[in-house]
Amino acid sequence: MTPETSIRWRRKDLLGIAELSPAEIELILDTADSFSEVGERAIKKVPTLRGRTVINLFFEASTRTRSSFEIAEKRLSADNINFSSSGSALEKGESLIDTALNLQAMAPDLVVIRHAHPGVPHMLAKRIKAGVINAGDGAHEHPTQALLDAYTIRRHKGRLAGLKVAILGDIEHSRVVRSNIHLLTKMGARVTVGGPRTLMPAAIEAMGVEVAHTLEDAVRDADVIMMLRIQLERQGRMSFPSIREYFQLFGLTTARLAAAKDDVIIMHPGPMNRGVEIASEVADGPYSVILEQVAHGVSVRMAVLYLLSGSYEEAA
Amino acid sequence: MTPETSIRWRRKDLLGIAELSPAEIELILDTADSFSEVGERAIKKVPTLRGRTVINLFFEASTRTRSSFEIAEKRLSADNINFSSSGSALEKGESLIDTALNLQAMAPDLVVIRHAHPGVPHMLAKRIKAGVINAGDGAHEHPTQALLDAYTIRRHKGRLAGLKVAILGDIEHSRVVRSNIHLLTKMGARVTVGGPRTLMPAAIEAMGVEVAHTLEDAVRDADVIMMLRIQLERQGRMSFPSIREYFQLFGLTTARLAAAKDDVIIMHPGPMNRGVEIASEVADGPYSVILEQVAHGVSVRMAVLYLLSGSYEEAA
Amino acid sequence: MTPETSIRWRRKDLLGIAELSPAEIELILDTADSFSEVGERAIKKVPTLRGRTVINLFFEASTRTRSSFEIAEKRLSADNINFSSSGSALEKGESLIDTALNLQAMAPDLVVIRHAHPGVPHMLAKRIKAGVINAGDGAHEHPTQALLDAYTIRRHKGRLAGLKVAILGDIEHSRVVRSNIHLLTKMGARVTVGGPRTLMPAAIEAMGVEVAHTLEDAVRDADVIMMLRIQLERQGRMSFPSIREYFQLFGLTTARLAAAKDDVIIMHPGPMNRGVEIASEVADGPYSVILEQVAHGVSVRMAVLYLLSGSYEEAA
Repeated sequence: MTPETSIRWRRKDLLGIAELSPAEIELILDTADSFSEVGERAIKKVPTLRGRTVINLFFEASTRTRSSFEIAEKRLSADNINFSSSGSALEKGESLIDTALNLQAMAPDLVVIRHAHPGVPHMLAKRIKAGVINAGDGAHEHPTQALLDAYTIRRHKGRLAGLKVAILGDIEHSRVVRSNIHLLTKMGARVTVGGPRTLMPAAIEAMGVEVAHTLEDAVRDADVIMMLRIQLERQGRMSFPSIREYFQLFGLTTARLAAAKDDVIIMHPGPMNRGVEIASEVADGPYSVILEQVAHGVSVRMAVLYLLSGSYEEAA
Repeated sequence: MTPETSIRWRRKDLLGIAELSPAEIELILDTADSFSEVGERAIKKVPTLRGRTVINLFFEASTRTRSSFEIAEKRLSADNINFSSSGSALEKGESLIDTALNLQAMAPDLVVIRHAHPGVPHMLAKRIKAGVINAGDGAHEHPTQALLDAYTIRRHKGRLAGLKVAILGDIEHSRVVRSNIHLLTKMGARVTVGGPRTLMPAAIEAMGVEVAHTLEDAVRDADVIMMLRIQLERQGRMSFPSIREYFQLFGLTTARLAAAKDDVIIMHPGPMNRGVEIASEVADGPYSVILEQVAHGVSVRMAVLYLLSGSYEEAA
Repeated sequence: MTPETSIRWRRKDLLGIAELSPAEIELILDTADSFSEVGERAIKKVPTLRGRTVINLFFEASTRTRSSFEIAEKRLSADNINFSSSGSALEKGESLIDTALNLQAMAPDLVVIRHAHPGVPHMLAKRIKAGVINAGDGAHEHPTQALLDAYTIRRHKGRLAGLKVAILGDIEHSRVVRSNIHLLTKMGARVTVGGPRTLMPAAIEAMGVEVAHTLEDAVRDADVIMMLRIQLERQGRMSFPSIREYFQLFGLTTARLAAAKDDVIIMHPGPMNRGVEIASEVADGPYSVILEQVAHGVSVRMAVLYLLSGSYEEAA
């Protein structure tokens, strides 16, 4: 472990990247490194969180994030309990706080929560003793996604500082982009965001990023290109004329990669819309690290669960 | 263990409180006491039911009861399988009995069932070899709720006999009240039920309780006040003019606690309607033991799972 | 182990019976035999797949098949993760292949999949490294059902070769019948299919079976009668005039069993429509082995999970 990361972990919760220090981010990534090896064993299981209980509270549909957390929990030998919004007491009119207090009374060690409203994980974290992990709150933050993105970049580039990262697509409605901007700028990367003007928040430069209004400008000399998902389910409320036109202006094709660095890597948080924000030739091509992101997601979530469980401090 | 409780446990199922003897009730509460300590450890797990299979069959939505059973099962190291009504063979027109026989053929050790129709758990219990736990059958019984309520009272008062317990709200439609009346009267407590006349069953006195028609009469000198949930989802079919009027007549406020004993405890099975049957000042106030009920629920369910699994008799 | 079955198991996937050799089928049935004993222990658990991850991907509702796999996985000490179609990324428009690649990136050992479209498990198997088990693909194959049926027959008759097996009902829309015909004909049984002409595929004789157009002809001298489920949920699109008429022509009653062998066994994959394709007197009668099928299903699925996990080859 490097001297930079031999710090103490004192947080009960992981609510966002905004409040983390660079040293804390490094500690999570270094811890993920040590768990990454577990995923390559035949027996992908360590007894680290045996007898600990993790509640997964998903108030929005999710396959990949929920499954990634579930696999991380099981690899750590934790017991987990799953709740989705349907069938919950919330349907009977109970407040979220009462649901939380009730779950807390059952003495879980950690609660992983996804919710459509920004700030819900923070409210929870203040009211319950269990550690809370924000698995996405509205368009606000999705910290484990940014951490797994950073981990993936670090595996390929050896560092984050000094890299040019282009993030492209629906900047306004993405929680992924918000967490990533916080993380990348803290760690010394240069971030350029690009996308249709109608999907670009007014004061985005205040977050320390550059804005490009064409894909070509955004990807020039990029070390990393992160594509964001266009939320087709919002169709009708979309801020651009058509999918075809979107692809013509902001869809990532092999031809458009030419302006980027020779060793550029292409990322996408998924689920992808092939032929909308990204061409299949790029998604499945040699620069794509999209599936590596998914694999690293499990290691990063194992690291976060481990650190928040207090096990790191106990071992120190 | 007291001489009264050094009895044998011979039941395969826990279907209701009505059929339990006081000695059996004491045995469950004493067993819960011994499991209660597990919930306070860092590693909240004992190997008691390792290799046993528990099927949770919830034909009605439930957050707290299902999660409480799930956590109890995992703390005992049992394997559990969850079914909810949606997606089940019942949708394909199969009878409940055939579903049960099929699950039985997979040789589970215990089945926890919640169903909208009274008597379904009893029917199941007759047809399958596995032990059956009634987790709520219509407006009939909800025995583990009454047991956790009794356990919570005993922790605070040291006993049940001789206490005055006021139960307030929708007496007619509550399975919780039915199980609680059976339990409390068997154990020598005096029970007064109160609520709107339109929500009071005609022959309720036959269950050995007194009836009060005002909240003030019901809570006078009470050691314990149990509030019941008003089922707002039945709105339109409600038997009282409005929520505001209900709160004025039967909502529990701090002012109305004055007539109760100085060390009264306030209980609620949840989910609460704050501002309807209970004011937030009471729900979160110093007399409230509402969240303790939830915590004790896990211990009581561990005790029931343990006793029905035959492990108690094996150890004897 | 008999000389016939001391073969190597080289398959990554179990997609259908069509591609299995008789020796492979024997190996699965022999392996099921050795796991069958585990289900009779008090502690029904072996550490065989500890630390292995199984993903259950059910894109169609299922109680019995999903629960049978879940119980088999837990008895083998595998970790399992469940997905149903609702709430999955597929609802966000992601392709099944992308969902699969994402799950694969999390490095599961095995994926159990049920899907309404024939061939989906095969497509998956080609794209992912994990072993794939087809738990039913449209009207195509349902190999573990055919294997558990064969196992049940073998337990009763000691062999499959030379037996007369009558399969009755909706031959056209059943995946169960397709897998069973492949298996039984490979193993030397004689198969007669019977049912309404409107539910009988034109070229069914090409599969090596005889066709009978009355129930009486089909069951004559049968050692085994397999009843298929009439899919009442297709009502309105049904190919016969009424349920009453169906029962009169093709419903299995005690009287109609007279023409079969004296030691005939009656099977049904469930869920049953009592009074439609089968009378309750037969379903619950002395010749019925319907619930044994369910019990053996767990053993057969344990065998398949074990063989596909590579553990058999490692032990060899």
